[in-house]
Amino acid sequence: MKYIAEIDIMPQKEILDPQGKAVKLGLHNLHIDSVGDVRIGKHIRLEVEAESEETAKATVDTACRQLLANLIMEEYTFSIAEITA
Amino acid sequence: MKYIAEIDIMPQKEILDPQGKAVKLGLHNLHIDSVGDVRIGKHIRLEVEAESEETAKATVDTACRQLLANLIMEEYTFSIAEITA
Repeated sequence: MKYIAEIDIMPQKEILDPQGKAVKLGLHNLHIDSVGDVRIGKHIRLEVEAESEETAKATVDTACRQLLANLIMEEYTFSIAEITA
Repeated sequence: MKYIAEIDIMPQKEILDPQGKAVKLGLHNLHIDSVGDVRIGKHIRLEVEAESEETAKATVDTACRQLLANLIMEEYTFSIAEITA
Protein backbone atom coordinates (compact mmCIF):
# COMPACT_ATOMS: atom_id res chain seq x y z
CA MET A 1 0.00 0.00 0.00
CA LYS A 2 1.04 3.56 -0.56
CA TYR A 3 1.22 6.13 2.15
CA ILE A 4 1.87 9.86 2.16
CA ALA A 5 3.93 11.20 5.02
CA GLU A 6 3.80 14.89 5.91
CA ILE A 7 6.91 15.76 7.90
CA ASP A 8 7.59 19.03 9.72
CA ILE A 9 11.15 19.74 10.72
CA MET A 10 11.53 22.75 12.98
CA PRO A 11 14.44 24.33 14.84
CA GLN A 12 14.36 23.29 18.49
CA LYS A 13 12.77 25.71 20.92
CA GLU A 14 16.05 26.59 22.61
CA ILE A 15 17.67 27.57 19.33
CA LEU A 16 17.53 31.06 17.84
CA ASP A 17 15.91 31.31 14.45
CA PRO A 18 17.41 34.32 12.63
CA GLN A 19 15.44 33.52 9.47
CA GLY A 20 12.21 33.70 11.49
CA LYS A 21 13.31 36.99 13.06
CA ALA A 22 13.97 38.44 9.62
CA VAL A 23 10.58 37.33 8.35
CA LYS A 24 8.88 38.87 11.39
CA LEU A 25 10.61 42.18 10.64
CA GLY A 26 9.58 41.89 7.00
CA LEU A 27 5.95 41.35 8.00
CA HIS A 28 6.04 44.37 10.30
CA ASN A 29 7.51 46.45 7.48
CA LEU A 30 4.48 45.43 5.41
CA HIS A 31 2.26 46.69 8.27
CA ILE A 32 1.22 43.20 9.27
CA ASP A 33 1.83 44.06 12.89
CA SER A 34 -0.23 41.49 14.74
CA VAL A 35 2.33 38.77 14.05
CA GLY A 36 4.44 37.76 17.00
CA ASP A 37 7.03 35.02 17.06
CA VAL A 38 7.90 33.41 13.71
CA ARG A 39 9.78 30.16 13.30
CA ILE A 40 10.76 28.64 10.00
CA GLY A 41 11.50 25.03 9.24
CA LYS A 42 11.09 22.50 6.49
CA HIS A 43 8.07 20.61 5.31
CA ILE A 44 8.71 17.34 3.50
CA ARG A 45 6.13 15.23 1.71
CA LEU A 46 7.19 11.61 1.11
CA GLU A 47 5.50 8.76 -0.65
CA VAL A 48 6.20 5.46 1.06
CA GLU A 49 5.37 1.99 -0.17
CA ALA A 50 4.75 -0.25 2.85
CA GLU A 51 2.70 -3.21 3.97
CA SER A 52 1.13 -1.49 6.94
CA GLU A 53 0.89 1.91 8.52
CA GLU A 54 3.28 0.71 11.22
CA THR A 55 5.96 -0.16 8.68
CA ALA A 56 5.45 3.14 6.88
CA LYS A 57 5.83 5.02 10.19
CA ALA A 58 9.03 3.13 10.98
CA THR A 59 10.45 3.93 7.53
CA VAL A 60 9.66 7.63 7.84
CA ASP A 61 11.11 7.74 11.34
CA THR A 62 14.34 6.15 10.09
CA ALA A 63 14.49 8.59 7.17
CA CYS A 64 14.09 11.54 9.55
CA ARG A 65 16.75 10.29 11.93
CA GLN A 66 19.29 9.27 9.31
CA LEU A 67 18.98 12.05 6.77
CA LEU A 68 16.18 14.58 6.98
CA ALA A 69 16.50 16.11 10.42
CA ASN A 70 19.57 17.31 12.24
CA LEU A 71 18.55 16.15 15.70
CA ILE A 72 21.08 18.37 17.42
CA MET A 73 19.32 21.51 16.23
CA GLU A 74 15.98 20.34 14.92
CA GLU A 75 12.97 18.33 15.97
CA TYR A 76 10.53 16.54 13.69
CA THR A 77 6.91 15.50 13.74
CA PHE A 78 5.02 13.67 11.05
CA SER A 79 1.64 12.29 10.13
CA ILE A 80 0.89 9.45 7.75
CA ALA A 81 -2.14 8.85 5.57
CA GLU A 82 -2.92 6.04 3.17
CA ILE A 83 -3.35 6.99 -0.46
CA THR A 84 -6.62 5.62 -1.74
CA ALA A 85 -6.38 5.58 -5.50
CA MET B 1 -6.63 36.32 21.66
CA LYS B 2 -3.53 34.54 20.52
CA TYR B 3 -3.48 32.06 17.71
CA ILE B 4 -0.82 29.79 16.28
CA ALA B 5 -0.76 29.34 12.54
CA GLU B 6 0.99 26.37 10.99
CA ILE B 7 1.75 27.16 7.36
CA ASP B 8 3.03 24.73 4.73
CA ILE B 9 4.52 26.21 1.60
CA MET B 10 5.23 23.64 -1.11
CA PRO B 11 6.42 23.86 -4.72
CA GLN B 12 3.47 23.59 -7.10
CA LYS B 13 2.77 20.17 -8.58
CA GLU B 14 3.82 21.16 -12.09
CA ILE B 15 7.21 22.36 -10.90
CA LEU B 16 10.28 20.13 -10.64
CA ASP B 17 11.77 19.82 -7.18
CA PRO B 18 15.49 19.08 -7.57
CA GLN B 19 16.03 19.24 -3.79
CA GLY B 20 13.39 16.54 -3.34
CA LYS B 21 15.01 14.44 -6.06
CA ALA B 22 18.37 14.72 -4.32
CA VAL B 23 16.86 13.70 -0.99
CA LYS B 24 15.17 10.71 -2.60
CA LEU B 25 18.54 9.61 -4.00
CA GLY B 26 20.12 10.12 -0.60
CA LEU B 27 17.48 7.96 1.06
CA HIS B 28 18.01 5.21 -1.51
CA ASN B 29 21.76 5.39 -0.89
CA LEU B 30 20.97 4.77 2.78
CA HIS B 31 18.98 1.69 1.70
CA ILE B 32 15.66 3.29 2.53
CA ASP B 33 14.27 2.08 -0.77
CA SER B 34 10.53 2.14 -0.17
CA VAL B 35 10.43 5.91 -0.50
CA GLY B 36 8.95 7.21 -3.74
CA ASP B 37 8.38 10.83 -4.64
CA VAL B 38 9.83 13.44 -2.27
CA ARG B 39 8.91 17.09 -2.26
CA ILE B 40 10.42 19.70 -0.01
CA GLY B 41 8.96 22.99 1.06
CA LYS B 42 8.85 25.29 4.03
CA HIS B 43 6.98 25.07 7.28
CA ILE B 44 6.31 28.33 9.09
CA ARG B 45 4.87 28.71 12.56
CA LEU B 46 3.44 32.15 13.33
CA GLU B 47 1.92 33.62 16.44
CA VAL B 48 -0.90 36.01 15.63
CA GLU B 49 -2.74 38.34 17.97
CA ALA B 50 -6.32 38.75 16.73
CA GLU B 51 -9.84 39.30 17.94
CA SER B 52 -11.31 36.27 16.25
CA GLU B 53 -10.23 33.21 14.31
CA GLU B 54 -11.55 34.88 11.14
CA THR B 55 -9.29 37.90 11.63
CA ALA B 56 -6.32 35.66 12.38
CA LYS B 57 -6.98 33.67 9.21
CA ALA B 58 -7.18 36.85 7.15
CA THR B 59 -3.88 38.10 8.61
CA VAL B 60 -2.09 34.83 7.88
CA ASP B 61 -3.50 34.73 4.37
CA THR B 62 -2.24 38.26 3.72
CA ALA B 63 1.18 37.37 5.14
CA CYS B 64 1.40 34.34 2.84
CA ARG B 65 0.39 36.31 -0.24
CA GLN B 66 2.53 39.34 0.41
CA LEU B 67 5.71 37.81 1.74
CA LEU B 68 5.91 34.15 2.64
CA ALA B 69 4.90 32.32 -0.52
CA ASN B 70 5.97 32.92 -4.09
CA LEU B 71 2.63 32.17 -5.70
CA ILE B 72 4.15 31.70 -9.14
CA MET B 73 6.05 28.63 -8.00
CA GLU B 74 4.57 27.70 -4.64
CA GLU B 75 1.24 26.97 -3.03
CA TYR B 76 0.37 27.33 0.62
CA THR B 77 -2.00 25.79 3.11
CA PHE B 78 -2.38 26.63 6.76
CA SER B 79 -4.27 25.77 9.89
CA ILE B 80 -4.96 27.97 12.88
CA ALA B 81 -5.42 27.05 16.51
CA GLU B 82 -6.10 29.23 19.52
CA ILE B 83 -3.46 29.24 22.23
CA THR B 84 -5.09 28.54 25.54
CA ALA B 85 -2.66 29.67 28.18
